[in-house]
Amino acid sequence: MSNHIYKKLELVGSSAESIEAAVQNALARAGKTVRNMRWFEVTETRGHIENGKVDHWQVTVKVGFTLED
Amino acid sequence: MSNHIYKKLELVGSSAESIEAAVQNALARAGKTVRNMRWFEVTETRGHIENGKVDHWQVTVKVGFTLED
Amino acid sequence: MSNHIYKKLELVGSSAESIEAAVQNALARAGKTVRNMRWFEVTETRGHIENGKVDHWQVTVKVGFTLED
Amino acid sequence: MSNHIYKKLELVGSSAESIEAAVQNALARAGKTVRNMRWFEVTETRGHIENGKVDHWQVTVKVGFTLED
Amino acid sequence: MSNHIYKKLELVGSSAESIEAAVQNALARAGKTVRNMRWFEVTETRGHIENGKVDHWQVTVKVGFTLED
Amino acid sequence: MSNHIYKKLELVGSSAESIEAAVQNALARAGKTVRNMRWFEVTETRGHIENGKVDHWQVTVKVGFTLED
Amino acid sequence: MSNHIYKKLELVGSSAESIEAAVQNALARAGKTVRNMRWFEVTETRGHIENGKVDHWQVTVKVGFTLED
Amino acid sequence: MSNHIYKKLELVGSSAESIEAAVQNALARAGKTVRNMRWFEVTETRGHIENGKVDHWQVTVKVGFTLED
Amino acid sequence: MSNHIYKKLELVGSSAESIEAAVQNALARAGKTVRNMRWFEVTETRGHIENGKVDHWQVTVKVGFTLED
Amino acid sequence: MSNHIYKKLELVGSSAESIEAAVQNALARAGKTVRNMRWFEVTETRGHIENGKVDHWQVTVKVGFTLED
Amino acid sequence: MSNHIYKKLELVGSSAESIEAAVQNALARAGKTVRNMRWFEVTETRGHIENGKVDHWQVTVKVGFTLED
Amino acid sequence: MSNHIYKKLELVGSSAESIEAAVQNALARAGKTVRNMRWFEVTETRGHIENGKVDHWQVTVKVGFTLED
Repeated sequence: MSNHIYKKLELVGSSAESIEAAVQNALARAGKTVRNMRWFEVTETRGHIENGKVDHWQVTVKVGFTLED
Repeated sequence: MSNHIYKKLELVGSSAESIEAAVQNALARAGKTVRNMRWFEVTETRGHIENGKVDHWQVTVKVGFTLED
Repeated sequence: MSNHIYKKLELVGSSAESIEAAVQNALARAGKTVRNMRWFEVTETRGHIENGKVDHWQVTVKVGFTLED
Repeated sequence: MSNHIYKKLELVGSSAESIEAAVQNALARAGKTVRNMRWFEVTETRGHIENGKVDHWQVTVKVGFTLED
Repeated sequence: MSNHIYKKLELVGSSAESIEAAVQNALARAGKTVRNMRWFEVTETRGHIENGKVDHWQVTVKVGFTLED
Repeated sequence: MSNHIYKKLELVGSSAESIEAAVQNALARAGKTVRNMRWFEVTETRGHIENGKVDHWQVTVKVGFTLED
Repeated sequence: MSNHIYKKLELVGSSAESIEAAVQNALARAGKTVRNMRWFEVTETRGHIENGKVDHWQVTVKVGFTLED
Repeated sequence: MSNHIYKKLELVGSSAESIEAAVQNALARAGKTVRNMRWFEVTETRGHIENGKVDHWQVTVKVGFTLED
Repeated sequence: MSNHIYKKLELVGSSAESIEAAVQNALARAGKTVRNMRWFEVTETRGHIENGKVDHWQVTVKVGFTLED
Repeated sequence: MSNHIYKKLELVGSSAESIEAAVQNALARAGKTVRNMRWFEVTETRGHIENGKVDHWQVTVKVGFTLED
Repeated sequence: MSNHIYKKLELVGSSAESIEAAVQNALARAGKTVRNMRWFEVTETRGHIENGKVDHWQVTVKVGFTLED
Repeated sequence: MSNHIYKKLELVGSSAESIEAAVQNALARAGKTVRNMRWFEVTETRGHIENGKVDHWQVTVKVGFTLED
C-alpha cells in the first residue's frame, strides 16, 4: 500500500431520500468511468427546499481512487 | 433568477430519529413564518447523549429564502 | 450545571448502515469505560468504498463527558 | 460608538454585471426594511453559468446595523 | 428538550470594560425583543484603539433562542 | 434536478482587467472541453505585481457541471 | 526541551464569573490527575443564558502536558 | 528563483469604486517604501455603508516582496 | 475615511492578570514605535501553566494602523 | 503569464522515506499523463503506522498545470 | 474493518533533526502505553529558534488506534 | 517570561532540498536584521515544478521574536 498514488475527484450527489443515498448516487455515477475507488470524504451537506420541505439532499464528496501503474 | 435577493436564517433542529429528521423539523418550524425557502446548508451536526446512547440529534442549518419585492 | 468540568474524547465509529449508526457504535464502545457522556459533535464524515459502493461509513465524533469531583 | 450594539444579517445578492453590483443589490433590498446599516463583510462569491459564461454573480454578505435604544 | 427548535442571531456587543461586559451588553439589548435566549457562542473578539489604548471591546456573539410552538 | 450528479473542477483564471474577467477567462477555456457547466465558487483571489501595480489577477474557481447519464 | 513529548487534553471549564475563571477551573480539575501541565490554548468560548443574562461561561481549552520517560 | 526569500505584509486598502481599486490603492501606498513587490493574496473583502449604499470597499491583502541579499 | 490605507501588525502580548491586560500590554509596547493605531483583532488566546495554574496569558492580536501620506 | 489558465489536480502520494519523497512520487506518477505542471500546494500530511512506527507517509497535494490553447 | 472503533490521541513530538523525526519520536513515546496505533495526521508544524537557527521542530499529530473489544 | 511582548513576521523561504531547509533559509535571512527570534509556525507548504519534478520548496513561516524594552 505504501507506494500507491491516489487521485481525488470532487462530486456532488443528490437524493430525495437521505444523505447516505446522495453519496451512493454520486459513487454509482462515478463508477461508470473510474475504477479502483477506495474512500470518500463528505465536505458539504446542502439541499433544496420545495413547499417548506427538503426536496432533495445535495452532498459534496471527495473520492480517492488508485492510479494504476 | 439573476435579480433575486436572498436572506439566510440560522436554525438548530432536533430529532430523536436521524440527522435528516432534525433538518426537516427545523424547516417545518421555520415554514410557519417564512415563505419562499429555497435551500439549506448543514453547518454543524451535534447531539445529546443519555445512558450512553444518542438521545437526540441537533443539526444547525442555514436556510436561504427569497426576499420578495 | 455551572460548575461542571467536561473532558472531550475524539473517536471514530464505523458502520455499514448509516452515519447515525456509526456514531451510535462509537458511543456504545466508549460507554464501556466512560461514564457520564453528555454530548457529541460530528467533526468528519468519511468512508471506504468496495466495488463502487460504500462499504462502511467512518464518522469522527468528539464526545463530552462530566469529570466527577 | 463604544456603547452601540449591532445585529448582523446574512444576505445573498445577485447581479449579471459584477461582484460589486451584487453587493449593492443586496444592500438596496435590505435597506427597504433595515435602517442604520453600517458595514458589510463578503463571505462567499459564487455564480451561475449559462452557455459557458457567467450568467449572474451571487455574493453572500453579512451586514451589520445599529440596534437603536 | 429533544423537540425544541432554536434560531440563532448574530450580534456585536461593545464595552469599554471587558470582553465579558461586551457580551452582557449584547444580550441585554437583544433581550428587549427576544425571549427564551438559551446559549451564546463568541465568534470574534475585536476592538477600537484611541491614544494607544483599548477604547472599547467589540465582541461578536451568536445567540440561540427557543422558537415557541 | 434531484437526480443530477455533478463533478467539480478546480481552475485558475487570470486577467489584467478584473476579478470578473479572470473568472470569465477560466470558464471560456474550460468550456472548450466541458459541457453543461452550471455554477462556480471563487475560492482564492490573488495576483502578480509588476512595478508596484497589479499586473494580472489570478482567481481560483471551482466549477460544477452535470455528469450526463 | 528539544526531546520532550507532550500530550494534549481537551477540556471544557465553566464559571459564573469570567472567561479566565472558566479556564482556571478546568485546569484545577485536570491537575488532580495530570502532572506537568505546560500550556493551554482556548479553542471555543460559549456560555448559557438565564433570564437574559450570562449564567455561566463555558470555555474549551486544549492543555499540553509533558509525558515523562 | 529558488533561493529567494520573501516577506509578507498585511495591508488594508480602500476605494469608493471597486474591489480592484482598493487593492491597487493599497499597493500604491506600500510601493512608496517597499521595493520588489511580487504578488498579493486577498484575504478579506469588507466595506462601509452610508445611506444604504456602499460608501467604500475595504480589502485586506497580503503582499509578498523579495528580501534582497 | 474612504481613502485611508492601513497596515496590520501581528503581536503577542502577555499578562499574569487577564486576557484584556495581555492585549493592553501588547498595544502599550507597540505604541512606542507605531502611531495612529485604530483597531485590533484577537486571533489566538493561549497561556502558560505553572503548578497547575495559569501563570500568564498570551494573546495574539492583529493591530491596524493608518499609513500616513 | 497573464493570460494562462491553469487546472488543479488533487493527488495523494506516499513514501516510506519522507514527506518530500511522497510529494515527488505523486508528481512522478501524474507526469505520465499531465504536461506543463507548474506548482503544487501541500494540503494534508498523514501516514500509516505499523508496529509503532511510521510505515509510510501520505501527502495530499494540489498540482497546478497550464491548459494549453 | 467496518466494525472497528478508533480513538484519537493528540501528541506533540519534537526533534532537532527533522519534521519526520519529530513524528517518529511522538509515536515511539506513545507506543509505550498504546497498542494498535493505525494512522496519524499532522495538524501543526512549529519549532523553537536558538541563535537564529531552528533548535528543534515541534509537530502536533493526531494518532488513531483501534479500541479492542 | 510573563511580561514579554512578541512580534510576528511572515516569511516565505525556499530551498531545492527540503521543507526543513526552506525554513532554515528564511530564518537565516531574517536573522540579518531581526534579533531575539524565539519560535516559528509553518502555515503553508508549496513549491514549483520543473520537468515534472519539484524544483524548489516554498514554505511560509510566521516567526515570533521578542520586542525589547
